[in-house]
Amino acid sequence: MNYRMIFYMTGRLLQLEAAVLLLPIAVAAAYGDGGLLGLAVALAVAAVAGTGMTLLRRPKNQTIYAKEGFIIVALSWLFLSAVGALPFVVSGGLTFVDAFFETVSGFTTTGASVLDLSVANLGHGLMFWRSFTHWIGGMGVLVLMMALVPTGSGRTIHVMRAEVPGPIVGKLVPRLKDTAKILYLIYLGMTVAEMLCLLCAGMTWFDSALLSFGTAGTGGFGLVPASIGDYSAAVQWIITVFMLLFGVNFNLYYLLLIRSFRPVAGNRELWLYLGIFAVATGLITVNILPLYDFGEAVRHAAFTVSSVVTTTGYATTDFNLWPGLSRGIIFLLLFVGGCAGSTAGGLKVSRVMLLGKTVIRELKRLIHPRSVSVVSLEGKRVEETTVQSTTAYFVLYMALIGGIFFVLSFENFSLETNLTAAITCLNNVGPGLGDVGPAGGFAGYSDLSKIVLSFAMLLGRLEIYPLVLALLPGTWTKR
Amino acid sequence: MNYRMIFYMTGRLLQLEAAVLLLPIAVAAAYGDGGLLGLAVALAVAAVAGTGMTLLRRPKNQTIYAKEGFIIVALSWLFLSAVGALPFVVSGGLTFVDAFFETVSGFTTTGASVLDLSVANLGHGLMFWRSFTHWIGGMGVLVLMMALVPTGSGRTIHVMRAEVPGPIVGKLVPRLKDTAKILYLIYLGMTVAEMLCLLCAGMTWFDSALLSFGTAGTGGFGLVPASIGDYSAAVQWIITVFMLLFGVNFNLYYLLLIRSFRPVAGNRELWLYLGIFAVATGLITVNILPLYDFGEAVRHAAFTVSSVVTTTGYATTDFNLWPGLSRGIIFLLLFVGGCAGSTAGGLKVSRVMLLGKTVIRELKRLIHPRSVSVVSLEGKRVEETTVQSTTAYFVLYMALIGGIFFVLSFENFSLETNLTAAITCLNNVGPGLGDVGPAGGFAGYSDLSKIVLSFAMLLGRLEIYPLVLALLPGTWTKR
Repeated sequence: MNYRMIFYMTGRLLQLEAAVLLLPIAVAAAYGDGGLLGLAVALAVAAVAGTGMTLLRRPKNQTIYAKEGFIIVALSWLFLSAVGALPFVVSGGLTFVDAFFETVSGFTTTGASVLDLSVANLGHGLMFWRSFTHWIGGMGVLVLMMALVPTGSGRTIHVMRAEVPGPIVGKLVPRLKDTAKILYLIYLGMTVAEMLCLLCAGMTWFDSALLSFGTAGTGGFGLVPASIGDYSAAVQWIITVFMLLFGVNFNLYYLLLIRSFRPVAGNRELWLYLGIFAVATGLITVNILPLYDFGEAVRHAAFTVSSVVTTTGYATTDFNLWPGLSRGIIFLLLFVGGCAGSTAGGLKVSRVMLLGKTVIRELKRLIHPRSVSVVSLEGKRVEETTVQSTTAYFVLYMALIGGIFFVLSFENFSLETNLTAAITCLNNVGPGLGDVGPAGGFAGYSDLSKIVLSFAMLLGRLEIYPLVLALLPGTWTKR
Repeated sequence: MNYRMIFYMTGRLLQLEAAVLLLPIAVAAAYGDGGLLGLAVALAVAAVAGTGMTLLRRPKNQTIYAKEGFIIVALSWLFLSAVGALPFVVSGGLTFVDAFFETVSGFTTTGASVLDLSVANLGHGLMFWRSFTHWIGGMGVLVLMMALVPTGSGRTIHVMRAEVPGPIVGKLVPRLKDTAKILYLIYLGMTVAEMLCLLCAGMTWFDSALLSFGTAGTGGFGLVPASIGDYSAAVQWIITVFMLLFGVNFNLYYLLLIRSFRPVAGNRELWLYLGIFAVATGLITVNILPLYDFGEAVRHAAFTVSSVVTTTGYATTDFNLWPGLSRGIIFLLLFVGGCAGSTAGGLKVSRVMLLGKTVIRELKRLIHPRSVSVVSLEGKRVEETTVQSTTAYFVLYMALIGGIFFVLSFENFSLETNLTAAITCLNNVGPGLGDVGPAGGFAGYSDLSKIVLSFAMLLGRLEIYPLVLALLPGTWTKR
């Protein structure tokens, strides 16, 4: 176990957090409506702790393996969230548990909130920081670090594998640093594009930036109690489209940039993802037609499906009041998530495909016991260890939903509320059904439940294994 | 594909059904309160169809493989239920869909009912048949056939594998026929023991027989609207204990009979099963203490946990009205089920253990990528194909819950009702939460939903694969 490298990387990450805190500090200073002290405290803590960790333990041996990768990711995200919560405690008047929940919800791009936006007055600086965490967490904060900071070692692929969502992670270009840079440039470009569209639709600079951060990271923190419901139909359609775009594997955008169109057109995950969107939107539109006129029904259905399947969590209307079929579809969509290699959470479409293919292989083997067949994805053979890892992932994922739900059961909420709260946090969606629906929130839960749900969000964002492994004593012992 | 053997075995099974129908006919004749005509019609149909199928297609080649085993089991259960439903249509005034649902619920030992027992008046003969289906279905109707009828071929292990629950099926003694006989004798003996206990507790002959059938098969059809709630505390404790006993692997009883105590004492599945019962009972007792005095709380908690974990479905009280924690625990217990090789449904404790061990192996492999480790259960190495089959089973199981829930979502029930209805039918429990709780029922669902739920019950009882494979065209084609 290379403890020095773990310390070093985590310290570097805190330094990066100090740097990005300069942006909300500038906003707070410009608007002058509070938050400056809290943000400055967080910056100071991040800078001192980060620099301390990098200086104290400068690593000689930079070699790390998979298990160091998991631990670096798990620790980094915990530290990042703990320090990122400080502004809400110091200047926002939140308890540390509430602030931690809100910050984890931000970085993990969940968008579940304990704030009542109709009374909370955080000021521009803190609101900017709250939404900016979505943007930082979406593409992966360690990936960002790799793009910016020289880390020296070529073994940081283990860190990237542990942080980037999806069952299979590949490099776009031979050098990992360049891959990270390309991904971030695409991400930045698309975020700016959405901002410009929203500005054109008449939104203020501040709102368009924050809502773009929330869309890009597929986060979903709203700025007002009605989330996106008070904005114009044009704004709602723009966000619908951009949510869908940010749920697509970013590798495909790179392929488009280098004019390699054929693999994009033939990408099965993309088509299944779009198919799920289309079918769910169609069914819900028909189902909610009695409640709205046709245009509204299509708009609300498309927005909601796009929001849930990409695990963003914005809402244009309280879908909690929709009929059973729509609510049932939303419940099922909570699990699926977007494409691998996107900023979306959930199981990911490619993992669902892989699970489906594993089942089909098993059915074939039961009929022809001596047949040997491999599972393939996007025309490539999937290694047997990846197949096993994916099914084990699914088992652990379901067990975690059960476990989180069990803890929440101690609270006086309905089964629907507790179950969807567990699912929506683990899948980084945000709102669920019942009391945690779009019109509700997570403020009613006890501190214990909020801490458990914070871990659920981290488990979901980091795809379970890093955090679980970091919590097992066996990971820390030397072989 | 050996079509002749499939026809022959299914025909033999219908003949067996004709034979067992003699028992309710005798009851109907003795009490003279209806049902005779319907039962006689079913007997005639079963006898004629069964004899026709065995005569028309006497197989020369008796060799069957795994896929014939699956198809025989799937077809047999479908025919058995369709014919078994006739008495309720002819003499009970039910529609065919309702009668089919009720009969499938009986044979699969689910115990979900569309009858309103406060108004339904089926008479003694039909009530006997209704509960007797639990007893026949519990241990496996094809296993019963193998115990009684000479089938000639040694390859019928494939049929037994497809019908007996649990991830691993072994023979107790070298000859399969003897294994089947031993299992049925233990089953019969324990049923008689429960009947005697209930008679001693002051119950009538008729009620004690029917409730013992329901316990033995872990079925759960009640005789009155309050299920077991109106009976004495002594009766409730007797049934609690016997439900638990019937949820234990029957191989262990055989080992006790041949005085082989050590493997029983060291059986991990048994201890985990008892541990789940003890912990859940303890938690629920504390949770419901405000509602009852201590003795009542323990009794209701123990009864309910025993009923749900063994997937029986009897109730002493409407646990739907209990606080969130108790309802949450019941929700989670709906999935687990009893031990493999028992009459209980659900995932089975040993399958849950196997899934857990698969996850632990995956975590180990992530830390030490080059380590190779095998999964073992009860001290024996589990073959890799069994591990893969079990994880694929779990994926398919969860997907089916999602699919069944989706169809039910078209109905105007709450998410809690629809979700637990899907889960409780697939796991052969019976009552769920919400409108399908112990005080409710399945009568409110549409015919489409009832048919889907009937298939869910069959899928659960046959452990998914046989029915799914029988529905795939690929299974029927010759290689």
